[in-house]
Amino acid sequence: MGGRAAYIAVDWGTTNRRAYAMTAGGVVVDTLQDECGVIALKPGDYPGAIATLRDRFGVQTIVAAGMVGSTRGWREAPYIDAPATLHALGAASLDVAPDVQIIPGVALRTGPRPDVMRGEEVQVLGAISTGAAPPTALFCQPGTHNKWIETVDGAITDFATVMTGELFALVRSHGILAGMLDGPVADGVAFRDGLRRGRESQHLAAALFEVRAGVLLDRLAPADAAAYASGLMIGADVGTRADLGDRPVHLLGGGALAALYTVAITEAGGCAVTVPDGSTTAGIHAIWSSRA
Amino acid sequence: MGGRAAYIAVDWGTTNRRAYAMTAGGVVVDTLQDECGVIALKPGDYPGAIATLRDRFGVQTIVAAGMVGSTRGWREAPYIDAPATLHALGAASLDVAPDVQIIPGVALRTGPRPDVMRGEEVQVLGAISTGAAPPTALFCQPGTHNKWIETVDGAITDFATVMTGELFALVRSHGILAGMLDGPVADGVAFRDGLRRGRESQHLAAALFEVRAGVLLDRLAPADAAAYASGLMIGADVGTRADLGDRPVHLLGGGALAALYTVAITEAGGCAVTVPDGSTTAGIHAIWSSRA
Repeated sequence: MGGRAAYIAVDWGTTNRRAYAMTAGGVVVDTLQDECGVIALKPGDYPGAIATLRDRFGVQTIVAAGMVGSTRGWREAPYIDAPATLHALGAASLDVAPDVQIIPGVALRTGPRPDVMRGEEVQVLGAISTGAAPPTALFCQPGTHNKWIETVDGAITDFATVMTGELFALVRSHGILAGMLDGPVADGVAFRDGLRRGRESQHLAAALFEVRAGVLLDRLAPADAAAYASGLMIGADVGTRADLGDRPVHLLGGGALAALYTVAITEAGGCAVTVPDGSTTAGIHAIWSSRA
Repeated sequence: MGGRAAYIAVDWGTTNRRAYAMTAGGVVVDTLQDECGVIALKPGDYPGAIATLRDRFGVQTIVAAGMVGSTRGWREAPYIDAPATLHALGAASLDVAPDVQIIPGVALRTGPRPDVMRGEEVQVLGAISTGAAPPTALFCQPGTHNKWIETVDGAITDFATVMTGELFALVRSHGILAGMLDGPVADGVAFRDGLRRGRESQHLAAALFEVRAGVLLDRLAPADAAAYASGLMIGADVGTRADLGDRPVHLLGGGALAALYTVAITEAGGCAVTVPDGSTTAGIHAIWSSRA
């Protein structure tokens, strides 16, 4: 617990809330993680949730990012348009209550395709602010919804949200493949076979049925089906990036899914570089510093 | 009720059962449709279900096609390999009980990709047997699992099963798009915009999230989201067929979904020709005739 906390940074997501007591120099001196995500809270619950954080850390000022600023959260902090910098995020932050700011998300509003993010923007730009990633880079943040994010000179210029993880969970729990995908999902021959097929197929909805046909025709061992299907879906996602040979992919987040994406990116001819933890607090700290 | 029934043809699927009293000349003289599909029956239920059909129609011989011959049905009638003709299907039919035959399905067992069908084969080859479609043709059978089927000289040579309908139902009922897709699914500007995006996107799992982003950013009217998403998924499916400009697509089955596929095929530069009803009984009749 070295140093006195100056404010509380909150990564306030759909399911989880992570709060950090931050010094004026950007050092995390205390943390709290709980399941008070926005789906657990009604709008009237937020003042109480804020009071609890203040009591816990003994600090007044709160700067939050993530789904707390969505229409499903406390109050909407309207998206800013890409290209989006930390400075622009700070300038557009919403003063939702005395000494409580919500950082907005980023939207692709007028380009060829619409997309939105909330929370990933502070992580990406935080990684750049600490030098953990270069100002012009390609990022990947695996999750229920994988995000590919491009930055140019420290601004988020383009991104794509991919429902890979959600679709895998849906076909695993419901429909004709449910019951076939109970096996482990891990790197191995089946996962890599799936990656290859996913990259080359260009037709995910057809390739998925091959899992069932493969098992029925003894071309795919039932115990391998889940790993193969996971590879298929991640391979279809990674396979759409035509630029993997040109530059490294900066991978945000850790755990098993990030490890699978590392394999997928490598197998597709790319190079994945893991961004160390701490980018989200770094991004929030840069915004707090600019407004303090 | 013209003519005396010689046997009963049964299209015995997962959910539904359709039975037809057939004359020796191939005329349907009586029909029965109920929900005694294979998911409603245990293996021990089939002798009773057969007795009911015989009592109903006053005929002994039964020839059945579809999921009744799967591992989830009465007893497995092993798949025959493509290329598959009506003659080969008849020769491989399973005598599952006295005077009861089950027609097998067709498998792609050794080619670049595995696939299976059960039931569609008699419909496709039946359409060819009556002249409703030429011996060398491309067929499309929309459904929960859309099937594209190619024939050459009266044999099924290749096919692909696409989980389009199932995936649409899953994202409509579960996950982040659920609640956004309650609007009507019908042809119109939104459906055709979806078709175009689905054909060009090449990345269905990313294009699906654009539905959510489009609604959040006021680029897509909430009432249009379901039609747009349906167009996206059907467009992604139809868009993988590079051969639509070369020959017509013979569309099997009717109803609203077939109408949407007709639009999708036309918008993709193809030409859809609807195959009239009666192909399934025609296919079963050709097999019965060859074995009688």
